[in-house]
Amino acid sequence: MEKEKRSPHIILASQSNLKFKETLPIKWGAQTAMERGPVVASNTNHKARNAIGAHSGSYTVYRALSIASGKFPPMHRPDLNNTQSPVKIGPYPQWKDPLKMVTVDPWGLDPQLNFKPLFEEGYDIRPTISVTQAHLQIPEINEAIDKGRLQVDGSIIRENRDVCVTKVAIDPVWYLPGVAERLNVDEGDLRRILFQETGGMYPEFITRPDLKVWLPPIGSSTAYIFGKAEDLANPKVELTCRVHDECNGSDVFGSDICTCRPYLMYGIEDATRTAQRGGVGIIIYYRKEGRALGEVTKFLVYNARKRQEGGDTAATYFRRTECVAGTEDARFQEFMPDCLHLFGISKIHNLHSMSNMKYDAIVKSGIEVVNRVSIPDHLIPQDAQVEMEAKKAAGYFSKEPKKTTEELKKVTGRAIKE
Amino acid sequence: MEKEKRSPHIILASQSNLKFKETLPIKWGAQTAMERGPVVASNTNHKARNAIGAHSGSYTVYRALSIASGKFPPMHRPDLNNTQSPVKIGPYPQWKDPLKMVTVDPWGLDPQLNFKPLFEEGYDIRPTISVTQAHLQIPEINEAIDKGRLQVDGSIIRENRDVCVTKVAIDPVWYLPGVAERLNVDEGDLRRILFQETGGMYPEFITRPDLKVWLPPIGSSTAYIFGKAEDLANPKVELTCRVHDECNGSDVFGSDICTCRPYLMYGIEDATRTAQRGGVGIIIYYRKEGRALGEVTKFLVYNARKRQEGGDTAATYFRRTECVAGTEDARFQEFMPDCLHLFGISKIHNLHSMSNMKYDAIVKSGIEVVNRVSIPDHLIPQDAQVEMEAKKAAGYFSKEPKKTTEELKKVTGRAIKE
Repeated sequence: MEKEKRSPHIILASQSNLKFKETLPIKWGAQTAMERGPVVASNTNHKARNAIGAHSGSYTVYRALSIASGKFPPMHRPDLNNTQSPVKIGPYPQWKDPLKMVTVDPWGLDPQLNFKPLFEEGYDIRPTISVTQAHLQIPEINEAIDKGRLQVDGSIIRENRDVCVTKVAIDPVWYLPGVAERLNVDEGDLRRILFQETGGMYPEFITRPDLKVWLPPIGSSTAYIFGKAEDLANPKVELTCRVHDECNGSDVFGSDICTCRPYLMYGIEDATRTAQRGGVGIIIYYRKEGRALGEVTKFLVYNARKRQEGGDTAATYFRRTECVAGTEDARFQEFMPDCLHLFGISKIHNLHSMSNMKYDAIVKSGIEVVNRVSIPDHLIPQDAQVEMEAKKAAGYFSKEPKKTTEELKKVTGRAIKE
Repeated sequence: MEKEKRSPHIILASQSNLKFKETLPIKWGAQTAMERGPVVASNTNHKARNAIGAHSGSYTVYRALSIASGKFPPMHRPDLNNTQSPVKIGPYPQWKDPLKMVTVDPWGLDPQLNFKPLFEEGYDIRPTISVTQAHLQIPEINEAIDKGRLQVDGSIIRENRDVCVTKVAIDPVWYLPGVAERLNVDEGDLRRILFQETGGMYPEFITRPDLKVWLPPIGSSTAYIFGKAEDLANPKVELTCRVHDECNGSDVFGSDICTCRPYLMYGIEDATRTAQRGGVGIIIYYRKEGRALGEVTKFLVYNARKRQEGGDTAATYFRRTECVAGTEDARFQEFMPDCLHLFGISKIHNLHSMSNMKYDAIVKSGIEVVNRVSIPDHLIPQDAQVEMEAKKAAGYFSKEPKKTTEELKKVTGRAIKE
C-alpha cells in the first residue's frame, strides 16, 4: 500500500469521482470500531484518505514546516508501541449513536487496538485521543491543604501533596452532517460557509460532498480525571464536573479582570475532594480563548470597555464585545458535551459553572444535572466584579439576586491607565 | 467598495490573473506603514484581499460557525473606536527590514491609525496585534513576597500584591518569501509542502504565487511587559526575558513531569524584580504545545517513555519523541525572535532559558545576550529530573556538568502505574 516517496504532483482539489479501493467508508455511530471504520487523514498514502484536513489540529502547520525544512521524513509512520491508554475508557452506548458525539472520534483512542486488522494490512491510522497519568503540584491545592479544606490521603493526594490524575487529550474530529444538524443548518450551506469564511480553506468542503469527516485546524481539549475513569459512566457514583474554556491571561498569568483561574482551581479542589469521598471528578479544558474569538480581539474589547464613556460597567459588558467582534460569543457550547459523552457520563451531581449556555447544552444532550455550583464570593477578584454582575444580570446561574440596570452602572472596573 | 451581502458564488481557488484595482500591493519591510501597505484578509470585500488565509488564527473556524448558524452578520466590520494601544510601541528600525520579522506584521498594531486614509476610503483592515494593561495575581509571586524575594513598591507591585503589566497579543502573519529564506528552502517548495502536508489547506499557495502573505490557522503569541514598554528598545536599560513555549499540563495544571510552570514563574518573578530596580522585563508565551507537536502526541510519548524497557530514563528521552512523532521538535525557534524585534529589542541582559535552540536563534537574529539564567535546582520537580538531565546531556545550557551515558540511565522517572 505504501509508496516510498511522496509524489510531487499537485492535485488542487480532489473530486468525488476519484475514489480508490483503499478508501474505507465511515459509518458514523456504528456499533463496533470495525463497522464504523477508521478515520484516515494521514498523508503516507493519499488513496486511503477518507477525511478532509490533517491530524494534530493547528499543529499540522508545524509538521508541514518540519517536512519543508528536511527535518521530518514525509513517509514517517508513528511507532505506537507502548503508547496505549493505561486505563480502560469505553466503549459506551454514547459512542454508538451517530448524533450524540459529532466533534470527537471515540475510536481514535488506541486505533492500533481498535483497528488491528487494518494496521496489519498497512493502513496508517493515527490516534486522535491519548490518555496518560500524571501528578499535579498546584499552589491553590497546597493552600487548600494548609487550610484544612483538603487532606493528604496517600492515594488521591500523596504525602508530597501531589494530586494523582488521569489525563486525556482529545483532538477535534468533526462529522459534518452531525455538526450541521446540531446547528440546525443545511450541511451544504455549512460546507460553503466554512469554505468561504475561512478564506478558502479546504476546497474539499465543496468538491468532496462524499467526505463527511473534517479534522479542523483548531486546538484540542484536555480532560483531567480525579478518581477512577470508569466511575464517570456510573450514575450512582457522585460526579463533580467543570467544563472550562481557556483563558490564558487568567489561567496561567492570573489577570484579575476575570474569574477564570479562581473558578478552575475551585473546580480542581472540589473534584479532588469528591474523589476522596469515593466519587469521581472531571475537569475538561477547551481551547476556546476569549469566547473563541481569540486573544487579539479580547484585548481590543478590554480597551473599548475601559475607555468607553461611563467607564467599564457591568451594564455594557456584552455590548462592547459584539461591537468589536461581531458576536458576543463564538464558543458553540452545543458541541461541548461531546467530550462528556466520550466518558459515558449520564449524570453530573455537581456542575461547577454559572453559565446557562453550558448548563443548557449539557442537559439538552441528555445528561442529568443535580446541583449547580457557583464560585464562592471570596474567590472573585475586585476587577472581575464587572464580569460577574453582567453575567448574573444576563441570567447566568447564581444564588444571589440580579442587580437592576441602575445598579449595574455602578459596578465598575479599573480605568485603562490604572 | 462594499457589497451588502456576500455572494453565494463559489470560487474554488482564485487565480493570479484575477486582479482587482482595490487590491493593494504589500511591500514587506518598507519604511512606513503606507509604503508597506496593509495586509487585508477580511472577507467583507473579496476584491481587496491581498493575503492567503483569514484573521484570528485557528479561531477563524469558530467565526465561520457563527456565520453559518446565523449568529454573526457576515458583513460585520469591527468598531475599533477606543481599542487602540494604551502605550506607544514602535516603529523601530527592525520593522523596516524585510528579513528581520517574517511571521509578525508590526503595522497590524492599531491599523486604524497606521492606515487611516485607507479606512476612510472604506478598506476593512483588521488588527493582528493588540495591547492592553492588566494586573496579575499569582500564587508564586505571593510566595516570593512572603519570603522577602520581592517587595511591594506601590507601583510595579501594588499594596494588594497585584503585579502591573502591559500585555500584547500577536496573531501570526507570515511573509512566505521570508519564511522560506529563514528555513533555507525554495519558496515554491515551501508552498507546495505547506499545501500537501496540511491535507490541501489553501490552494492559493499554488494558484496565487503573487500573494506573499499568509495568516496561518495557528495559535497567537502573548507578551507580558513588566516596567515601561518603550524601555525594551533601549539597550542601556537592563532587560530580563523569558521566551516560553506553551505547556498546558504544567503551566495551568502543574504536572510534575516537566519544569514549564516553575520556569515561567521564576521568569515572572525575575522580570518583576528587574522592573523594580529600574529595568524592564518581558515574558513571551508562544502557543507551541508539546514542542509544537500537540498534546495528543505528547501523551503518547509520555506513555512510551514510561513503559519502555528500562523505564523512563534521561538516556532515551529524545529518542522516544522521534519514534512516535517523526521529529524531536517542531517549534522552529528561528521564528521566535520576531516577537522580540517587534519591541525593538537589541540586547537582553538576562535570558531565562537553558535551550540552545532559543539562545542560538536569538543571537543569530542580531540580539546580544549578556547572561543566561537557568532555573534554580530547588524549583525542579523530582519527576522532571529525567527531562532536565536529558537536556543537559544534549548540550542545553547549565552551570552544572553533564552526566555520562551510564549516569543518564540512572536518572529515572515514575513508572506508568505510579
